[in-house]
Amino acid sequence: MNVQPHTVKAFGEELNQLSSDVARMGGLAEALVADCIQAVVRRDGDLAASIIDRDKQVDVMEREIEKRVIRIIALRQPMATDLRATIAAYRISHDLERIGDLAKNIARRTHVLNESEPVVLTRGVERMGKLVVGHLHDTLNAYSSGAVDEAVTAWRADEEVDEHYNSLFRELLTYMMEDPRMISSSTQMLFVAKNLERIGDHCTNIAEMVHYLVTGEELHRAPPVPKSDLSDPA
Amino acid sequence: MNVQPHTVKAFGEELNQLSSDVARMGGLAEALVADCIQAVVRRDGDLAASIIDRDKQVDVMEREIEKRVIRIIALRQPMATDLRATIAAYRISHDLERIGDLAKNIARRTHVLNESEPVVLTRGVERMGKLVVGHLHDTLNAYSSGAVDEAVTAWRADEEVDEHYNSLFRELLTYMMEDPRMISSSTQMLFVAKNLERIGDHCTNIAEMVHYLVTGEELHRAPPVPKSDLSDPA
Repeated sequence: MNVQPHTVKAFGEELNQLSSDVARMGGLAEALVADCIQAVVRRDGDLAASIIDRDKQVDVMEREIEKRVIRIIALRQPMATDLRATIAAYRISHDLERIGDLAKNIARRTHVLNESEPVVLTRGVERMGKLVVGHLHDTLNAYSSGAVDEAVTAWRADEEVDEHYNSLFRELLTYMMEDPRMISSSTQMLFVAKNLERIGDHCTNIAEMVHYLVTGEELHRAPPVPKSDLSDPA
Repeated sequence: MNVQPHTVKAFGEELNQLSSDVARMGGLAEALVADCIQAVVRRDGDLAASIIDRDKQVDVMEREIEKRVIRIIALRQPMATDLRATIAAYRISHDLERIGDLAKNIARRTHVLNESEPVVLTRGVERMGKLVVGHLHDTLNAYSSGAVDEAVTAWRADEEVDEHYNSLFRELLTYMMEDPRMISSSTQMLFVAKNLERIGDHCTNIAEMVHYLVTGEELHRAPPVPKSDLSDPA
């Protein structure tokens, strides 16, 4: 190729910058997820407000990354590993933006929950939340370090999140049936749990992207075990 | 520019091909949404199975479009309108893929609903479904014709979908409170309605993309009226 060495070097730096920006965006999203669970569990309206505000930053970062990805593809015409790194950055930033959005949606429920529902409802959600934050953390580590094994482990772990969700779903349904006064708050919690489950799905997407980035091959889209039972397949 | 006329012509054709593929994908997605509502309303397991199968085709189309978008950006380095058309095709295909997924998730609930719940629950969902299908249809028309006005109308119409969703949400909650035996099926319907509302959000995204594609300007992300009341902000 007729390129000057310094051009190649600049391109390498450009790609490094891109992936470090994605990693930073990941850090922001991770904090939003951890905080939104705290906001709901502690019914902390101030924390919820700060999450809603900080999510805007995540949105801005996604747009910035998108612009740079387009410029890189247009001007550098990356091939093989470089193309994969560029596409992975784009897709992962999109998943992170969605994760930020879901955290924001969870935070918004704090407001509605501020009334007076039994603490019993929040325990399961808190456990599930910690699990999801852990997977997101591991997945982002795998992205930064390029550790495929970690990515596969995090990818597999999503089953556990789904199991948690399904058992929480049944538990919340039981509460509702036992006491109609709990229907409204249980429904809110159902949506919080559903959003956490969707955050888990986005972690899975990111783990798949890390695998594709490092190995050039896609992980099987359909896991061997059904992702969730039919009581709630959405 | 030092390009041969036939090169420019080939590029124009490439872009036309791209947008006609997106339009075709839109047609498939639209049919999935219309059918999934029928599957739930009529508890039609066969229709549900066909939807789940046809959604795979939508997924394949998204990947094909993505590959071609990357190739176009790399080889043609499109500018201005051409770049917008390329990016719009990419983003719209992504929204259509999500719409297909959500239709599939709705179809899957048919299985669980096959038992014996009162028809009363399905009426509201059917109405909401028709509304969403109509908006998707109008939005895709706007994409094909480049009619910005139609896109803006469809974009505004999402508020109506959200209002429908909110009133359905309250209605379903009332059923649950009145009769605990309806909690399980009402919860399923709640998720069906939620998925329809999310399909509406993706229509909004597409309408925004059409606006950007035609005018080069973005529609205001935050609508003047809150998108949904706090009883369900997810």
